[in-house]
Amino acid sequence: MKVFIAGVDGYLGWALAQHLVKRGHTVAGNDIFLRREWVEEVESTSATPVYSIDERLAAFREVHGVDLIFREVDLLDYPALREFLAEFQPDAIVHLAEMPSAPYSMIDQKHAAFTQTNNVIGSLNVLWAMREVCPDAHLVKLGTMGEYGTPNVDIPEGFFEIEYRGRKDVLPFPRQANSFYHLTKVHDTNNTMFACKTWGLRSTDIMQGVVFGTRIDAMGDDPRLFTRLDFDQCFGTAVNRFCCQAVVGHPLTLFGSGHMRRGFLPLRDSIQCLTITIENPPQKGEYRVFNQFEETYTIEELAQKVKEAGAAVGLDVEIGYYENPRTEKHEHYYNPDRQHLIDLGYVPTHDVVAEMKIMLQDLLPHRDRIMEKREILVPDIWWDRERHRAQQISPETTK
Amino acid sequence: MKVFIAGVDGYLGWALAQHLVKRGHTVAGNDIFLRREWVEEVESTSATPVYSIDERLAAFREVHGVDLIFREVDLLDYPALREFLAEFQPDAIVHLAEMPSAPYSMIDQKHAAFTQTNNVIGSLNVLWAMREVCPDAHLVKLGTMGEYGTPNVDIPEGFFEIEYRGRKDVLPFPRQANSFYHLTKVHDTNNTMFACKTWGLRSTDIMQGVVFGTRIDAMGDDPRLFTRLDFDQCFGTAVNRFCCQAVVGHPLTLFGSGHMRRGFLPLRDSIQCLTITIENPPQKGEYRVFNQFEETYTIEELAQKVKEAGAAVGLDVEIGYYENPRTEKHEHYYNPDRQHLIDLGYVPTHDVVAEMKIMLQDLLPHRDRIMEKREILVPDIWWDRERHRAQQISPETTK
Repeated sequence: MKVFIAGVDGYLGWALAQHLVKRGHTVAGNDIFLRREWVEEVESTSATPVYSIDERLAAFREVHGVDLIFREVDLLDYPALREFLAEFQPDAIVHLAEMPSAPYSMIDQKHAAFTQTNNVIGSLNVLWAMREVCPDAHLVKLGTMGEYGTPNVDIPEGFFEIEYRGRKDVLPFPRQANSFYHLTKVHDTNNTMFACKTWGLRSTDIMQGVVFGTRIDAMGDDPRLFTRLDFDQCFGTAVNRFCCQAVVGHPLTLFGSGHMRRGFLPLRDSIQCLTITIENPPQKGEYRVFNQFEETYTIEELAQKVKEAGAAVGLDVEIGYYENPRTEKHEHYYNPDRQHLIDLGYVPTHDVVAEMKIMLQDLLPHRDRIMEKREILVPDIWWDRERHRAQQISPETTK
Repeated sequence: MKVFIAGVDGYLGWALAQHLVKRGHTVAGNDIFLRREWVEEVESTSATPVYSIDERLAAFREVHGVDLIFREVDLLDYPALREFLAEFQPDAIVHLAEMPSAPYSMIDQKHAAFTQTNNVIGSLNVLWAMREVCPDAHLVKLGTMGEYGTPNVDIPEGFFEIEYRGRKDVLPFPRQANSFYHLTKVHDTNNTMFACKTWGLRSTDIMQGVVFGTRIDAMGDDPRLFTRLDFDQCFGTAVNRFCCQAVVGHPLTLFGSGHMRRGFLPLRDSIQCLTITIENPPQKGEYRVFNQFEETYTIEELAQKVKEAGAAVGLDVEIGYYENPRTEKHEHYYNPDRQHLIDLGYVPTHDVVAEMKIMLQDLLPHRDRIMEKREILVPDIWWDRERHRAQQISPETTK
């Protein structure tokens, strides 16, 4: 199949491109390297070194024996996007080219407006370009489990049948996102659902859990083919942050009680699931939603697992409780479905602790890179207050 | 009270400003006259002459005896918006400064992207400015009944209690909007709900039906104080279009079967409801939703009423059935609630036909202005096809 990856230089995109060519697919992609800029802006860096795009593309050709067809095209540059897609004629488009950070979107008006413009208009442009030049392609759109929030009922995959005042209908499950970033994913969901219904486009909307991990098998051992691994408050996801903190002997920065429960999955399973989705497209006009995660854990449970994985590789990991800069429920019901991908063949690769051990071993050689940025390990972007570093607290005060 | 009206030069804004000063409120507002430009762009004009902002403001002072505090400020110019609100310190902000047309948003990629940027980022900027300079103000945000679409169950006012797999929660009612314009209203709803929850802002989100009518009492008989009245496919709402068509002897352009049912209300009741909302603010941190319409009618029923009102003023009105350029259900269940405003004192002013008679009498002197634009009375913007004029069809073919 011909697969177009928007955001191919990113954490997921760079890994997915390699996995797909290993399976015999032809891959093209775009990027304008904003992720590299944003991480610099928040005064951080990737724990694993990230090579220049030219070095990456050269290594890709050398190791995988095929070209990654690449153009530096912004999704907001509609004519250029349209032309690229018209020429490549993808069977599938995987849209990973969004600003992916909740705290970054909450910094101030400028960052919120940038996030919503970049994500919503970028995705809207993909929909229009599909309509105009590749209406049969399958859009694999990356949403987030965060779209649903934490309702007091089970979370189905996108839609639910309800009875209300004696009548029935199948309706989109209500979304209650909790940052201007998460809200862009909801906006994209609504725009995409409409485009499928009105124009007969086909799309799988992936409500993905929090991804963690340093590698997938397709990367082999060439460091030029490794993906990035962020550990700052904006672009580092929970487990990735915890593992980097463990490696430099910083307390794991657990927010509040740490009882917030979320869905998680390793990078290799995210790539596995995206590949299953690409290789099993929906019907023309079909809009379907997959909840994509391996298991739900509380943040505290994950911190305990990182402690356990750390002990196995000789690290003495301390867990710290910090003020929660996010406005969110600490105690809540959480029971999302995740059957669609399992029905299509998804089998989790490892248990979580095994994956964490691999991560810690990959990160240990880069201890100095993380140590150098040690001061950004504690968050200072608040949902409802001016910026200031969160303080460590006694776990008792969060009860 | 001090009321800020964003989009004060528009159809609703200009009427609301006059009604509010008549009731003793102080009114400020902004506008950058985009509505005037858009209507020109689609090669139409207002049936009632629209005076320049300077003439309007002079007449306002002369007739109402007070100034309308006005600045030409774009909501996308955040520093200017913030400064205006910081200086005026409104008790209420009525946000009417959006691009309000479904067909305009469906013309092409450029119009869709403009609509979503203008509406979503404009509203987002209002939320940030409120947080920063007037966090106690009440945001009266204009949504649309079109956010809900046409589900097969009753439509509550914003939220509903459901039981799902044996558990209960009160959740936002699912939105299924049917154009990139209507989708902006859904995006705004989601952003506003989040801002109220996270920052403690207060907002009433008005899901308004389709408004029609030429005047409210506060305008008196000075033509400089009349509001605009559009009749083109983009900016003319159903009844306004029908009345203008009736006046020039053009068949009423009913789309498809005309069985689509929607909520409608006269301009004077829209202004009455907005005023009730402003004068009865929610609690700090409260986000509430009002469905705002007088009654639901099918488009065919409304066309019959325009025919009836026409006969009363000596017009022989013909009803035409045209291909429907919109992709929408022609036959559907529709039963929305509208109790909140009634509980606060809303009483419909006239019956619909009485209002239509007033409209036709107001429009008859402007027959030549409409006649001149006769060729734009039939729509040519399609939801899923290239632009071309819709053809008149036999009502039998729509069955």
